[in-house]
Amino acid sequence: MAVNLTSPDPKTLLPVAGVQLGIARAGIRKSGRRDLLLIRLDEGAQVAGVFTQNRFCAAPVVVARQHLSMNDPGRSIRALVINTGVANAGTGKEGLVRARQTCADAAGLLGCEATQVLPVSTGVIMEPLPADRIAAGLPACVVALKADAWAEAAEAIMTTDTLPKAASRQFPVGNSTITITGIAKGAGMIHPGMATMLGFVATDARISQPLVKAAVSHAAQRSFNCITVDGDTSTNDSFMLIATGKAEMSEITDAKSAEYLAFREAVTSVAIQLAQAIVRDGEGATKFITVSVEAGRNEDECRKVAYAIAHSPLIKTAFFASDPNLGRILAAIGYAGIADLEVEGIELYLDDVLVAQHGGRHPGYQEADGQRVMKQAEITVRVVLNRGRASAVVWTCDLSHDYVSINADYRS
Amino acid sequence: MAVNLTSPDPKTLLPVAGVQLGIARAGIRKSGRRDLLLIRLDEGAQVAGVFTQNRFCAAPVVVARQHLSMNDPGRSIRALVINTGVANAGTGKEGLVRARQTCADAAGLLGCEATQVLPVSTGVIMEPLPADRIAAGLPACVVALKADAWAEAAEAIMTTDTLPKAASRQFPVGNSTITITGIAKGAGMIHPGMATMLGFVATDARISQPLVKAAVSHAAQRSFNCITVDGDTSTNDSFMLIATGKAEMSEITDAKSAEYLAFREAVTSVAIQLAQAIVRDGEGATKFITVSVEAGRNEDECRKVAYAIAHSPLIKTAFFASDPNLGRILAAIGYAGIADLEVEGIELYLDDVLVAQHGGRHPGYQEADGQRVMKQAEITVRVVLNRGRASAVVWTCDLSHDYVSINADYRS
Repeated sequence: MAVNLTSPDPKTLLPVAGVQLGIARAGIRKSGRRDLLLIRLDEGAQVAGVFTQNRFCAAPVVVARQHLSMNDPGRSIRALVINTGVANAGTGKEGLVRARQTCADAAGLLGCEATQVLPVSTGVIMEPLPADRIAAGLPACVVALKADAWAEAAEAIMTTDTLPKAASRQFPVGNSTITITGIAKGAGMIHPGMATMLGFVATDARISQPLVKAAVSHAAQRSFNCITVDGDTSTNDSFMLIATGKAEMSEITDAKSAEYLAFREAVTSVAIQLAQAIVRDGEGATKFITVSVEAGRNEDECRKVAYAIAHSPLIKTAFFASDPNLGRILAAIGYAGIADLEVEGIELYLDDVLVAQHGGRHPGYQEADGQRVMKQAEITVRVVLNRGRASAVVWTCDLSHDYVSINADYRS
Repeated sequence: MAVNLTSPDPKTLLPVAGVQLGIARAGIRKSGRRDLLLIRLDEGAQVAGVFTQNRFCAAPVVVARQHLSMNDPGRSIRALVINTGVANAGTGKEGLVRARQTCADAAGLLGCEATQVLPVSTGVIMEPLPADRIAAGLPACVVALKADAWAEAAEAIMTTDTLPKAASRQFPVGNSTITITGIAKGAGMIHPGMATMLGFVATDARISQPLVKAAVSHAAQRSFNCITVDGDTSTNDSFMLIATGKAEMSEITDAKSAEYLAFREAVTSVAIQLAQAIVRDGEGATKFITVSVEAGRNEDECRKVAYAIAHSPLIKTAFFASDPNLGRILAAIGYAGIADLEVEGIELYLDDVLVAQHGGRHPGYQEADGQRVMKQAEITVRVVLNRGRASAVVWTCDLSHDYVSINADYRS
């Protein structure tokens, strides 16, 4: 059951000049489903990505990082090859060989070098990648390439997602208008053994490579790095930003310019929309919860408190039950790992309801008020630390019976 | 459903000279159930404790720490007052007033000072402690005091535990035999809003105060600090060791003596038995899982890896489903936070089955072998890091539908 999540209307997904998408049924893990996506980029696109910090990171993540590091003005990235079904993670040296083989196969069809192709995989960990099936499926992807296939692409990268996730908008930047279209997948930070979160955002903006890199980090920090479903971090998490430079505009090269700040803000807003869609489609989610921690000494401590709340199975089951058992939230704040936190100064709000202050329940708090908020499908937990000016926001969902069912039964 | 957990046979719980226990029905949260326990100690007992690190620690924890710090040879701790139902956590200054009032009430009945009494509470967070009901119940506890009430005491401190937890054994120490009897409660590191783990171990050994303190830390680090059900850390967690000094023996005063090492080992073994009983009775638990991480550079990194595995909802649901979806374990090792971990060197075993090495699945691994182990009620996950000589063990349970039910429905 997804929370306030609707499938993106294909008509609202705008093509991005310089980007074509082709989908095929390669039978990677199950036959008949769309499981292979080729994204072809015109010459000269700037691409940057942020990737999982997991030490068991997947072979395609290793190879994509290498290929991006070899990227230079004369040898731009020309394609991404994305498969679902098998994550190619926990596959040792053979996994690297197969990821590189996939790049070479795509390069052969597109007439570029293997190092100009980025491989991306999502699916079951510790299974060998069927590179031969990908090779066999790629020609069909090439034949299918077209600019207005974003909706089908969003569908092709789904695993246990219940709905495709996509966003598309136009933004004024300086004197021109740029288009940004993105897709994402994931329904648990790590899925039922699925190696999970993928996001691809493309724009026609003209912008220098260093600023694409800066923008993708900025956006990830405020979107995909602010969500949690179950606290697990996948071996395959990847978020990539593609700027094709096809828009009629002068190149953005100054990190302090108004144009760059507008661009960065636009990319971040699309990334947040995609990231929130992942939480709304969280495994078994029935509620969408915003955890906002304010007035901390620094962002790091605000994030620690927000994640302690957002990760607690105990709090998440209380949200599922609409039970305002809010002492659990105080307990989570207390074990968030801030050694010098004085609980006297903390205020806890559930939406607009002041629940606790001065180390205990607010005298005016009524259980009926907490109950009213807990019954909503969207809830904000607000913690005011009253010891500084920093803040952080994390989005999460509740923990329901369906989470256990989905994860217990996934491979069967 | 508890895993291989049986109720302790009252006949096996040996009295400890110098300790008397009295139970009453004080109607603290629900009427009719035994919810108040008084433990009276003869003059001269040595007591030491380890307590939650939660910043929202409960008022009784604050007061118990204070009273223990005032403990000196001429003014020993004479009683513990333990109530269930209300945790007296998240209760601000009024909570401290009520915890101290409870100590004063008990002291008045026993003829000692309030600072010679330790208060202990467990129950719902952020509710005011009904100190008047405790005061009204204490005289019945005093009347009931007797040495052989350990089984009833184990029952009186239960909250959502399905079975009481107790252990009792005799050990040779030097030329004498000491008795150690302990009780514990807890069925989630934090319960459904319950503030949770309590352990009390008493012995008649004669031992100096500094060594009681050292032994309680040593034992906690190897027992209650090695278990997790859901990763939450309670506001009330407390483990106390009482040494009455009634045994016929010379006082143990040397931390390097064979007698002290034997004593410490004996206390630790009883604490491990109690801690494992908590996991076996974990909320909704159907499996008992030992996570053993070996050959690490230091104990800290071994514990990080063990806890990453033991906390992962994804791994815990796979155990519930008996699904050998073991890539999830590799992913957890990878995100445990060891920045320089080389996955090439790691070996993963499920009991005696080698599952993964060299960064991927072991060529000889057969899913049927993994399946066979996953079906067992007790499973050991063994991770060999191959980069040092340190090790760590953590005990945990699976994550089942019942966990969600218990926590979602607790207060109703």
